[in-house]
Amino acid sequence: MAKEILYLKIANIIEEQIFSETLKIGDKLPSIRALQKLHDVSLNTIKQSFLELESKSLIESRPKSGFYVSKTSNRKLLIPSMNKLKLSEQKTTSEDLITKVFDSLSDKDITRFSIGVPDPSLLPIAKLNKGLAKVVRNLAESGTSYEPVQGSANLRRNVAKWAIVLEGKLTEDDFVTTSGAMNAIFNCLMAVTKRGDTIAIESPVYFGIIQVAQNMGLNIIELPTHPTTGVDLEALKKVIHKVDVCCFMSNFSNPLGSLMPDQNKKELVELLTYHNVPLIEDDLYGNLFFGTVRPKPCKYYDEAGIVMWCGSVSKTLAPGYRVGWVAPGKFKDKIIRQKMAHTVCMPSLYQEVIADFLEHGRYDHHLRNLRSTLYTNSLHFQRTIEDHFPENTKISQPQGGSFLWLELDKSIDTAVLYDKAIQQKIGFAPGRIFTQHDQYNNCMRLNFGLEWKEKVELDLKRLGQLVKNSL
Amino acid sequence: MAKEILYLKIANIIEEQIFSETLKIGDKLPSIRALQKLHDVSLNTIKQSFLELESKSLIESRPKSGFYVSKTSNRKLLIPSMNKLKLSEQKTTSEDLITKVFDSLSDKDITRFSIGVPDPSLLPIAKLNKGLAKVVRNLAESGTSYEPVQGSANLRRNVAKWAIVLEGKLTEDDFVTTSGAMNAIFNCLMAVTKRGDTIAIESPVYFGIIQVAQNMGLNIIELPTHPTTGVDLEALKKVIHKVDVCCFMSNFSNPLGSLMPDQNKKELVELLTYHNVPLIEDDLYGNLFFGTVRPKPCKYYDEAGIVMWCGSVSKTLAPGYRVGWVAPGKFKDKIIRQKMAHTVCMPSLYQEVIADFLEHGRYDHHLRNLRSTLYTNSLHFQRTIEDHFPENTKISQPQGGSFLWLELDKSIDTAVLYDKAIQQKIGFAPGRIFTQHDQYNNCMRLNFGLEWKEKVELDLKRLGQLVKNSL
Repeated sequence: MAKEILYLKIANIIEEQIFSETLKIGDKLPSIRALQKLHDVSLNTIKQSFLELESKSLIESRPKSGFYVSKTSNRKLLIPSMNKLKLSEQKTTSEDLITKVFDSLSDKDITRFSIGVPDPSLLPIAKLNKGLAKVVRNLAESGTSYEPVQGSANLRRNVAKWAIVLEGKLTEDDFVTTSGAMNAIFNCLMAVTKRGDTIAIESPVYFGIIQVAQNMGLNIIELPTHPTTGVDLEALKKVIHKVDVCCFMSNFSNPLGSLMPDQNKKELVELLTYHNVPLIEDDLYGNLFFGTVRPKPCKYYDEAGIVMWCGSVSKTLAPGYRVGWVAPGKFKDKIIRQKMAHTVCMPSLYQEVIADFLEHGRYDHHLRNLRSTLYTNSLHFQRTIEDHFPENTKISQPQGGSFLWLELDKSIDTAVLYDKAIQQKIGFAPGRIFTQHDQYNNCMRLNFGLEWKEKVELDLKRLGQLVKNSL
Repeated sequence: MAKEILYLKIANIIEEQIFSETLKIGDKLPSIRALQKLHDVSLNTIKQSFLELESKSLIESRPKSGFYVSKTSNRKLLIPSMNKLKLSEQKTTSEDLITKVFDSLSDKDITRFSIGVPDPSLLPIAKLNKGLAKVVRNLAESGTSYEPVQGSANLRRNVAKWAIVLEGKLTEDDFVTTSGAMNAIFNCLMAVTKRGDTIAIESPVYFGIIQVAQNMGLNIIELPTHPTTGVDLEALKKVIHKVDVCCFMSNFSNPLGSLMPDQNKKELVELLTYHNVPLIEDDLYGNLFFGTVRPKPCKYYDEAGIVMWCGSVSKTLAPGYRVGWVAPGKFKDKIIRQKMAHTVCMPSLYQEVIADFLEHGRYDHHLRNLRSTLYTNSLHFQRTIEDHFPENTKISQPQGGSFLWLELDKSIDTAVLYDKAIQQKIGFAPGRIFTQHDQYNNCMRLNFGLEWKEKVELDLKRLGQLVKNSL
């Protein structure tokens, strides 16, 4: 039996013991040596099994003590299955469905499980306004003049300082500011692809990535993506010879909430470096971790300058500010030239507001609160879904970010369900929009970045009832 | 002799009489009938000659009286020659030169004849700041939320109202907001071209247009452009079969300051409609007219929806705000989808500030002052150049905008002159950057959108001396 299958087999055994509550929350697991002898395999295989379980948040290690069943492992519902790579070439667009979801956003009475940004109630709007007033007073020529094409030096310096997870590898000169992370991704694609090239992306994937790739005439390969560990590297290896660029969300992907283990990130960067394929790393959720440390980006492992690391404050501070950035590695000069040709430069104002917010520790403080709120919300949502959705519902287990991914009974079409829900003023994002293929029709994405209050809880229960009624 | 050459021949005779002061300022010209008999040609030919002279501001008509030598015709220097279509395929880029010019902008001690935007002293910064403070107070969710992809409805409504020159043909729904006019042009090009397509542009032309076209992998055809009447339609007709899109500045082009006569605009739109070639009309200087009325854009004549009319406030109010728009005709839906894919949406704040500025008559008031200042400046500049530059200098005769185009002695290389001038803290834009070909090396663009004061006058004289020394 192949080694990689062995470790998964052992992990599955332990996983079942946890779900059947043979192993209860807080229970200590047998030691690695004990399990090695029991299964008659190498120490390494057991370590890999534990890594797998850890990546699913089922177990956690305690220093100098061993491994324990995690507090978050008490889950009634299974995680969604990993999709097979669809060979169907049918590329029906889901534009209409996306437009429908976006159109609903203007109705403030709708409970917006559908939206991709945190509710304004979770944002530090008063503090941002204070910063805005300060910046307006101090801005050179009141912001009426052009700033340097590369973007506000002040913002770039603060973003570089804030990227402590990279251990000082990047300086302000390595960054270019952009109009949100989406604009960073667009600029990266413009820099490294031409019409007819092939892009490899996760599946399910944020629909904006599909839209921009289609818009630019790229061929899209959707890769199977694990709900907890992210994109399947084995699947990528099989198609790498026809891939011109990859675009992945390594940390708390949208919509799955998956987190690539460090080992996978390292391996991915090595693979892409070997094949000279650039990686656009969309890391805009990286600061919304539920664990103890900010996960590393793939950029950390990048020595050849092939990783273009994109970020923004759109998911944490102020979506409407349109402030993002990219550390484009060896493509920096090209990105700057392009930015000048596309738009000359950006407005300075909001860049300076964000720089100020980062510089004075306000971002750090705000993120601690936001993470705590999001984590608590994720537990509220999971409990409510467990209690009020059908028993065969599968649910993702995000370790950060603000999304849950639900896989419902095969008979349910969430595009149809959407119309019923919206009539009851409940919005969600149907699974079909997260792929170019005809799949995920029984899935939905829920945003838990809302204020958890009676109305929201009630609407989540009503959504569960709607699903039950559709069976 | 072909009819079109006949009318030019007659126009030239009259032009020479004006320059030799045989006909003095204010003199009445012979009647059309008298000239018809004298030259033994049709009435129409004489009318065309007068149109030509009028377009050069050499003569002006007075109602019910006839034609007179114009007050602005007292010029010692000739207007620059119209370039021939260069057949050389040598496309040396002028990137380094452009970078040099841009780098100099950070040095505030340099007299910036080089820059493409009005000096901050000409902008209503205090009033804009007042508007900003008001908007900040009233913005929904303090601007932290996404606005509709199409852009601020408030701004679009006010831009539509302001476009009185279109006689109500456009409504707010016809506009999409963009990050400045450059971003509008980029979006239009993305919507209607693919790599390898051919774009026809003016020559000389704003270098940003060359950069974005090269960046997108387009073939560029530079068309001969008349210093006063704009792009040569006969030259366009000869290549129209291989053109996929046109991008022209119909009103007060950068750098020539040319203004297409209404008749040419109409003919252009008819030609492009017949061949189904979209026109990107960059009309960001249209409000800076020195005459009595705002010239019409080509969009006025557009019945098939092929004209994509681009504008902004970057040359009149606040370059750094990055607020522009496009009325994209039949390409509107595509432009909106693209904008969403490229950047989701724009920040609302500055759009609302501009909308407010337009709505309350402040723009109208400011433009009246700005036009008056620019026109006076243009006369100061022309006089100073006439007195302090070599006699064989040729100079454009802009009827709006903020640029003069100078053609110097053939022996002068303005790229070399640039280095000498910048050492003396004088900046200008060398002719070479306004073309993809190896031409205009003896030309320069001067921005007269500065505060006319002793230092500026002195530096302009010193620049003239530098030119003389280089002979």
